[in-house]
Amino acid sequence: MPRPKEKRAPVIKDVAALANVSVSTVSRYLNDSPRISEESRSRIAHAIRLLDYHPSRVARGLVNSTMKSIAVLTSNTTLYGSSMTIQGIEDEARTNNYPVSISKLDDDSADGLRASITMVMDQNPSGVVVMKYDELAAKALNLLPDTVAKVVIAGDRESDLDQIDLRENQSGREITEFLLGLGHANVVHVTIPGGGGGYSRTAGWEAALRANDKPIPDMWHCSWLPSDARELGHEIAHVDGLTAIFAGNDEIAMGLIRGLEDEGKSVPGDISVIGFDDHPLSSVWTPPLTTYRQDFPAAGRQAVQLLLSRIEAQERGEVLPARFVELQGELVVRASAGAPPSAR
Amino acid sequence: MPRPKEKRAPVIKDVAALANVSVSTVSRYLNDSPRISEESRSRIAHAIRLLDYHPSRVARGLVNSTMKSIAVLTSNTTLYGSSMTIQGIEDEARTNNYPVSISKLDDDSADGLRASITMVMDQNPSGVVVMKYDELAAKALNLLPDTVAKVVIAGDRESDLDQIDLRENQSGREITEFLLGLGHANVVHVTIPGGGGGYSRTAGWEAALRANDKPIPDMWHCSWLPSDARELGHEIAHVDGLTAIFAGNDEIAMGLIRGLEDEGKSVPGDISVIGFDDHPLSSVWTPPLTTYRQDFPAAGRQAVQLLLSRIEAQERGEVLPARFVELQGELVVRASAGAPPSAR
Repeated sequence: MPRPKEKRAPVIKDVAALANVSVSTVSRYLNDSPRISEESRSRIAHAIRLLDYHPSRVARGLVNSTMKSIAVLTSNTTLYGSSMTIQGIEDEARTNNYPVSISKLDDDSADGLRASITMVMDQNPSGVVVMKYDELAAKALNLLPDTVAKVVIAGDRESDLDQIDLRENQSGREITEFLLGLGHANVVHVTIPGGGGGYSRTAGWEAALRANDKPIPDMWHCSWLPSDARELGHEIAHVDGLTAIFAGNDEIAMGLIRGLEDEGKSVPGDISVIGFDDHPLSSVWTPPLTTYRQDFPAAGRQAVQLLLSRIEAQERGEVLPARFVELQGELVVRASAGAPPSAR
Repeated sequence: MPRPKEKRAPVIKDVAALANVSVSTVSRYLNDSPRISEESRSRIAHAIRLLDYHPSRVARGLVNSTMKSIAVLTSNTTLYGSSMTIQGIEDEARTNNYPVSISKLDDDSADGLRASITMVMDQNPSGVVVMKYDELAAKALNLLPDTVAKVVIAGDRESDLDQIDLRENQSGREITEFLLGLGHANVVHVTIPGGGGGYSRTAGWEAALRANDKPIPDMWHCSWLPSDARELGHEIAHVDGLTAIFAGNDEIAMGLIRGLEDEGKSVPGDISVIGFDDHPLSSVWTPPLTTYRQDFPAAGRQAVQLLLSRIEAQERGEVLPARFVELQGELVVRASAGAPPSAR
């Protein structure tokens, strides 16, 4: 005698049979697909209640094969720019009812990086946002399958992918030219870790100096720590003739200023310092920091908008051309940069 | 005539047959299980190479049903404490070859919260870290299935779960008593958003005042923005007799100090201000900030250690008792707090 049917847990087929629809229709229902009639929707809901059906992961995910979600690949989650970009991604994704999962890339080895990518793809995301703020993220981008919908934020230009460009190069150029315009003979640059590449703020600094027939001074390298920047400030304070610094970011600028002051230099009286990002503490710093505002949350939000339109196009079987969105920041003039002492 | 075998992609059964092991042994191999002999391991590796087999998601994940990974639930990814905790989690997980996926909780609705949880559980994580830094994360914890291995960081005490306690209450108490010990008649508190609860720094401040027979002054509430704290500083500067402030975190302390200075008050000459966290910019602030160091990365690392030992115990069929780890921070005395003006 066969076991009585009610002894086993109901499966998706039971729901389909009771609702008189196909299994794939139930699957679409479970995945919140819009492509399902109101009538079928209500019959399926009724069947699910009657059977006390609890969809398994397989029924909800693998049958349809795309659970609605956005994956974010980034090599950093804690720095101001990264965390604000992530916030923008999360906000826009939530507005569109896409859950977000953030995966920090592993930089220990090629295997570690591949393992991170595998884990992300195993989640079967609807699309992927790659925060290409450094080399590691650029490598990760290359390891992603061609087929998955993706969008890239920042970094060197991609020829065939949707991309948000923060125009760092132009911004670095503008900062440098602003300082030269104040009368400084030259501008020294302190880079962030991993800074560089043709589209970077550092490349913009070089381009501005070259365009103005200035020699390119040696770059100073700094970690992400303001305390290290302070130490660097102790050295830089004693460089002859140095009157202007373009710091790779605001935290470095704040540490540098403190280090310069430790050595008896005044900012901007003796040395002008400009930061980058417009960190929330920049305006309350002493002196209030002249910096370059980057709209990281907007980059995150627009990346998700591009990604969702691409996902939707894929679902309709359409192919969109690669889109390129430029988000120009703006110079925020406060009090940490002025004319050089010689011009006073 | 049957199609020639080489026309279809190899599946896990082909690997098992060629290596002369069971399908579940191949599955264990694909999931890096330690429970597999060196000999089987090498036969399987050989078979995979010969067949050019690429394991599908199903073969790797669902057969064994637990892909190795750690999920993190948090309502915030950008604030200093949250982002540093996440960094500690990521570092320790990477050391143990567990990929990490971070899910930001959705606070718009109960449905949104449930959707976040569903997405996390759909990834079938080996275990979950809940960063219980606020009410939302506490709610999310209640929605997690009982069966999944989990660990809680911070918040009110859990009776039956592994938990890391940052001892905020004791720290808030110590800060307040330090200020009273400097001779201040009372201590005003500016809370962070969502601050409160019996185990919070705010509760510690109240407890210290009560223990010293001081009236409890009205609390001041602030957003996370230093610029809002600065505005608050403009008001607080004009409160009669106020000489000591315990700020809910360092960014708020920095904004407050700037606001007090805007109104002609000196810190610590007229008013002492102590922060919380030991943010990287605290030491380079003017004046260098007296604050309370919290070891967030250690909280993240230790949470992962607890979680992994629990996961391993579950795999062995053992039940571990709930463990409770206290991580006491430390008062960092710099220059933003001193004796009240009357005592000079």
